[in-house]
Amino acid sequence: MAKSRFNKAVALLSGGLDSTVTLYYALKEGFSPTALLFDYNQRHKKELRFALKTLNYLKVPFYKVKFSFPWGGSALTDRKIKVPLSFSKGIPSTYVPGRNIIFLSFAVSLAERLNCKSIFIGAHTQDYSGYPDCRPEFINSFQSAVNKGIKYRGIKIVAPLINMDKTEIIKLGVSLGARFDYTWSCYNDGKYPCGKCDSCRYRAAGFKRAGIKDPGARQKN
Amino acid sequence: MAKSRFNKAVALLSGGLDSTVTLYYALKEGFSPTALLFDYNQRHKKELRFALKTLNYLKVPFYKVKFSFPWGGSALTDRKIKVPLSFSKGIPSTYVPGRNIIFLSFAVSLAERLNCKSIFIGAHTQDYSGYPDCRPEFINSFQSAVNKGIKYRGIKIVAPLINMDKTEIIKLGVSLGARFDYTWSCYNDGKYPCGKCDSCRYRAAGFKRAGIKDPGARQKN
Repeated sequence: MAKSRFNKAVALLSGGLDSTVTLYYALKEGFSPTALLFDYNQRHKKELRFALKTLNYLKVPFYKVKFSFPWGGSALTDRKIKVPLSFSKGIPSTYVPGRNIIFLSFAVSLAERLNCKSIFIGAHTQDYSGYPDCRPEFINSFQSAVNKGIKYRGIKIVAPLINMDKTEIIKLGVSLGARFDYTWSCYNDGKYPCGKCDSCRYRAAGFKRAGIKDPGARQKN
Repeated sequence: MAKSRFNKAVALLSGGLDSTVTLYYALKEGFSPTALLFDYNQRHKKELRFALKTLNYLKVPFYKVKFSFPWGGSALTDRKIKVPLSFSKGIPSTYVPGRNIIFLSFAVSLAERLNCKSIFIGAHTQDYSGYPDCRPEFINSFQSAVNKGIKYRGIKIVAPLINMDKTEIIKLGVSLGARFDYTWSCYNDGKYPCGKCDSCRYRAAGFKRAGIKDPGARQKN
């Protein structure tokens, strides 16, 4: 697909592995993405530093929205709640109510502002923590809603990883030349990835199954 | 309807007339609302001071979320764009892309956190500026989407004013004992309401048709 003004897109970027691979994918597909970052006072805010490494490397412009969830209630936004260090049954305490709904809402606002027809999001439903706002039925339904709620029509939410597991995402990333050392997955705020939270475990298992050494596994943030 | 823990609600409150009447309405209907305020660096941020007067008067708890739209593009969030001083044809420059989508997304997050089944919003489609995110088809469709995107199910978005015009809203406010002097509608940031922006004009016309003197018409903010 040739790059053109019709291929402008917004790409949600957390600095984690999935959204980073999604950004590489959008570029490969000929889109001109503007990345959208969120500082929501997340425990693992350092992921944003990794997002900036990727953006700098790929020369992709970005906007950052800053807000906080004053009502707490998630291990990612409320320092009083600990990040679980073993795989959780059901939806874990790292779930942030409505997070993707909020992220996508801001993305819709930016997409309308920049006349972008596409919003890229790295959500997927394999090897994930069961967050309901990552499921395809939510994403499709949200897309119909927003197309009724904005002046500019025809915005499409693109979730290229939606049916992939972590191993497939990593393999896709390799094929796209993704710099995994410019990604941060750990939910904790230690000097090195904790290796114990859901996010670290999914990442490690994905690299292991892909037969690839994770260049970010022991990196200092 | 008796007040009970089953009637917990989130009520979006801007400090303007519509959302204030909606809050009185929710209380009258027996709900226990928690108000949700937004400081999005809006030009007429002083509306929040009026919201606080209402909250203090009604003894309603609240949360405030602060963020900004770094991409500008609306007369309400970009100081370089002037607020139009005559009725606009089409959707005016005060339109903020995706604003209600974002507001409702945060409300959904709070509602899930507090186990609220209802979200009250003062949106209506008469005597308004044609913002697409005030239309019932958007609100209904958004509600279906969020119920797929959150852990907690069955949140209902309630827009009691949706089919009312400004005059009916004012009459409803009177019947509920609403303190209109604790509301601010003007989009501009002057000492007194400008009387010329869309929002001032709709308000003045509404009070005139209702045959009621607006106690907030010439108030100093």
